Amino acid sequence: MADPEFKQIAIIGIGLLGSSIAHAVNAYGGAEEVSMWDISDDVRARAERVVPGTVFESAQDAVTGADCVILCTPVGVLREVTGHISGALSEGAILTDVGSVKAKAAADMRAACPDHVHLVPGHPIAGTEKSGPEAGFASLFQDTWNILTPGTETSADYKYAVERLTGFWIRLGAKVETMDANRHDRVLAITSHLPHLIAYNIVSTAYDMESVEQGEVVKYSAGGFRDFTRIAASDPTMWRDVFLTNKDAVLETLGRFSEDLAALQRAIRWGDGDMLMKEFSRARGIRKAIIDAGLDTAEADFGRRQLDTDQEE
Amino acid sequence: MADPEFKQIAIIGIGLLGSSIAHAVNAYGGAEEVSMWDISDDVRARAERVVPGTVFESAQDAVTGADCVILCTPVGVLREVTGHISGALSEGAILTDVGSVKAKAAADMRAACPDHVHLVPGHPIAGTEKSGPEAGFASLFQDTWNILTPGTETSADYKYAVERLTGFWIRLGAKVETMDANRHDRVLAITSHLPHLIAYNIVSTAYDMESVEQGEVVKYSAGGFRDFTRIAASDPTMWRDVFLTNKDAVLETLGRFSEDLAALQRAIRWGDGDMLMKEFSRARGIRKAIIDAGLDTAEADFGRRQLDTDQEE
Repeated sequence: MADPEFKQIAIIGIGLLGSSIAHAVNAYGGAEEVSMWDISDDVRARAERVVPGTVFESAQDAVTGADCVILCTPVGVLREVTGHISGALSEGAILTDVGSVKAKAAADMRAACPDHVHLVPGHPIAGTEKSGPEAGFASLFQDTWNILTPGTETSADYKYAVERLTGFWIRLGAKVETMDANRHDRVLAITSHLPHLIAYNIVSTAYDMESVEQGEVVKYSAGGFRDFTRIAASDPTMWRDVFLTNKDAVLETLGRFSEDLAALQRAIRWGDGDMLMKEFSRARGIRKAIIDAGLDTAEADFGRRQLDTDQEE
Repeated sequence: MADPEFKQIAIIGIGLLGSSIAHAVNAYGGAEEVSMWDISDDVRARAERVVPGTVFESAQDAVTGADCVILCTPVGVLREVTGHISGALSEGAILTDVGSVKAKAAADMRAACPDHVHLVPGHPIAGTEKSGPEAGFASLFQDTWNILTPGTETSADYKYAVERLTGFWIRLGAKVETMDANRHDRVLAITSHLPHLIAYNIVSTAYDMESVEQGEVVKYSAGGFRDFTRIAASDPTMWRDVFLTNKDAVLETLGRFSEDLAALQRAIRWGDGDMLMKEFSRARGIRKAIIDAGLDTAEADFGRRQLDTDQEE
């Protein structure tokens, strides 16, 4: 294995992402030592049993001596957490995060980050619907994109910091892209944030249907609904913070979605089959582009998951 | 193998569902002979090469002598198709369908169905995003629900017809439930029709974002969007007809969805994190019920499908 990019990485927040980074470093290298901390006593105790690395009792102790600190908390607390550890951050250390929103995250971290630390915000587009330190696994980042949104600093030191962090993520299996933070937030608003909001919303709507039993919704969920419940099982705290911190891009995207939906609604009400055909047909173009890019080899199924699993066993 | 339920089944419309029924009968029994027809010359020619059974040049020839006729066309043409074949239907034959909407489908078929035929509408909740005779496969119905919506006839002959059709679908691997047609349409509006409409809509919205490149949407689709494109790749003609024929239930469900979405939108705009947490948290309840019922063993992933497939190979 090539020399690790870092001597010591510190992971703050030991959930799905934090614990997966620890597992991935353990499996693929990238740092000689992993130190970590979580605000929850319970999570720290569980992490000690299942996550490779050293769990510290204080955030300051965890980051002391680290040349790379990765904040894996909900984005809503990044400023507070950065302020909490700022006095203990080493000269020349890299401070990064894994938040799904980048402009606000970068501003929040920058507000509390000492000048002698290189701030390089990042967002690994990787995850499952599971949460907690037990959900982490080493291959989570394999073949996924990680978007870094570096600042405007032009010093050689800063560029080297971005290079080291890039090398670290590539070693964990990710493909790395750099992007402007605002652009990231607009792209992710449509590719990730809106899909999650819609999924949460349709599950809510199903809950409140008086004319349909919950049991029926569950029983016949294979018709499409089930796929939405999978997305909507993601961590509520994380997603609350995503919507509150990427408010402008989400509201803009949501406004367009609602307009488009109102047009479909009108077409259904007035029996405009041609309009429906036109809209439904172009969806296949984007699907084809995703398949052609090798980005999805899974197939839709309505009812067959249980069987597929049975057959594989 | 037990005696087949039918001597001859006729399949009208040789798409994903029609061809899968032919494959399933070939694999598991249920009928001694399979005759079939499709309105498209091209589909008939392709079906002759890949689908087990006899492809006829006219719908009347295909249904002649059949004791069970299964209409596998889009629901919008059920009335026309039923009228087209009505003169050739045998005394005591069963006429059924596979449409995703039942009240309108039943009314349309009934309007053109001769009195000497037993009409038993049905809806196998099974499918993939693929279309055409090449997409069919024998195990499509294994462990899926098939909802029959029988009429109010109380004759022993009619009851026996429902029993035979039930036995036929069980033999193909399905679980069979009977339900009132209107109830079916309300349940499916939330579990299937609305999810598909939403999926089509979000893909449309993504198409029209000037501020985000198509290539970026494709590249970062793993964040949730990709799952929607899979659902939105379903057959546009079939879905157009579903929305036009289940108009009332879809508009009612869509109205509730839009109201709920407006409430989430307002919470995001005004920073009401508590409301978002409350809504997002209850989604996990339905997810748990689906998993507890053994109805979904797949896990969400954001970025890992490609890898999973690589590892399996």
